[in-house]
Amino acid sequence: MVEAAMDYIRDPQEIYRESFATIRREADLSGFPGGLGEIAVRVIHACGMVDIVDDLVMTPDAAEAGRAALDNGCAIICDVEMVRHGIMRRLLPNETELLCNVGSEAAAQLAFERETTRSAAAIESLSDRLPGSIVAIGNAPTALFHLLELLDRGLSPPALIVAAPVGFVGAAESKESLIADAGAIPHVVVRGRRGGSAMAASIVNAIAGGLKTCT
Amino acid sequence: MVEAAMDYIRDPQEIYRESFATIRREADLSGFPGGLGEIAVRVIHACGMVDIVDDLVMTPDAAEAGRAALDNGCAIICDVEMVRHGIMRRLLPNETELLCNVGSEAAAQLAFERETTRSAAAIESLSDRLPGSIVAIGNAPTALFHLLELLDRGLSPPALIVAAPVGFVGAAESKESLIADAGAIPHVVVRGRRGGSAMAASIVNAIAGGLKTCT
Repeated sequence: MVEAAMDYIRDPQEIYRESFATIRREADLSGFPGGLGEIAVRVIHACGMVDIVDDLVMTPDAAEAGRAALDNGCAIICDVEMVRHGIMRRLLPNETELLCNVGSEAAAQLAFERETTRSAAAIESLSDRLPGSIVAIGNAPTALFHLLELLDRGLSPPALIVAAPVGFVGAAESKESLIADAGAIPHVVVRGRRGGSAMAASIVNAIAGGLKTCT
Repeated sequence: MVEAAMDYIRDPQEIYRESFATIRREADLSGFPGGLGEIAVRVIHACGMVDIVDDLVMTPDAAEAGRAALDNGCAIICDVEMVRHGIMRRLLPNETELLCNVGSEAAAQLAFERETTRSAAAIESLSDRLPGSIVAIGNAPTALFHLLELLDRGLSPPALIVAAPVGFVGAAESKESLIADAGAIPHVVVRGRRGGSAMAASIVNAIAGGLKTCT
């Protein structure tokens, strides 16, 4: 069927090195100085699309705010399990908690009461952990909308909001609401319909470890 | 900050319904009859990009082959944990095993011996489970390349290969190798650099449950 000795790169570090070099060659990263550039490279790496930079919006303090929060022992709150499993544990301080409540009975019950999604209810169920945290949303627009509602009701803000919900209903709108109405909170946003768990996780990984890699 | 009562759709079934309707309105699905169309819709839904259909390659028997394998109690073998966590358990037959060895000590040891990635070694470490299985690759080109090598050495084939590795080094090439050299095996491929765990999982979800949803 296939040739016995296929010619491809097997060394993980070499794969990372060549991937990042290709991205830096092809992508215009001039709008993203310092740590923001490392975020942009990792997002491109996660999705295979150089033009995703056109949809990236970051506050200038996003990388520092996220890093400082991690150093202060903040939790990372994820909307779905895929985001949690895309974050590289080894890049984080040992004590960092990676939280996701979407599969919990509490979230299911709260979703029923609020007549909303489990992803949105799961965010509310972690209200006491949200202030000062890093919130990473890679799937559900309703989770981001509901976070904005909680903030509007006076919840103390997270240290950083990573907003990359994906899809056709509410994804673009929820991200524009964040930028327009809660833009003072440090954030990294993937505008438009595109997004996803891998992009959300890659942003956290970039903030936690830059372009250091784990194999 | 934000308006107290935001206007967005909260009902999960309504979100799915409107998402799928938007996709069917915008995407050209004429090349994907029957069950293949449901796969295409779910892939678009997972990534937010209607034009991903241009990169979708499926054998005509892909949906039936995958469904029959699930009905026969096959395992689903994933290259990374994100794929495993994107597959909706409730759409699968109760006994279906969702396997991923990438975090195992066995894969780490084998990767060291073979001088390759843990993702590739993890596939080999499940060699006895591969024949008749569904293999879902959403991250690592080396996992797909190594699967092709194992097949070349005489391993009995999986029932279905879902090939959506992503990125800049080997992703496009590994998928073209599959199509060119192992194309007789039922497959669903996301050509090019694009791909990812969410797309791979969405293909399995489409085969397992069509456009039925779980909230």
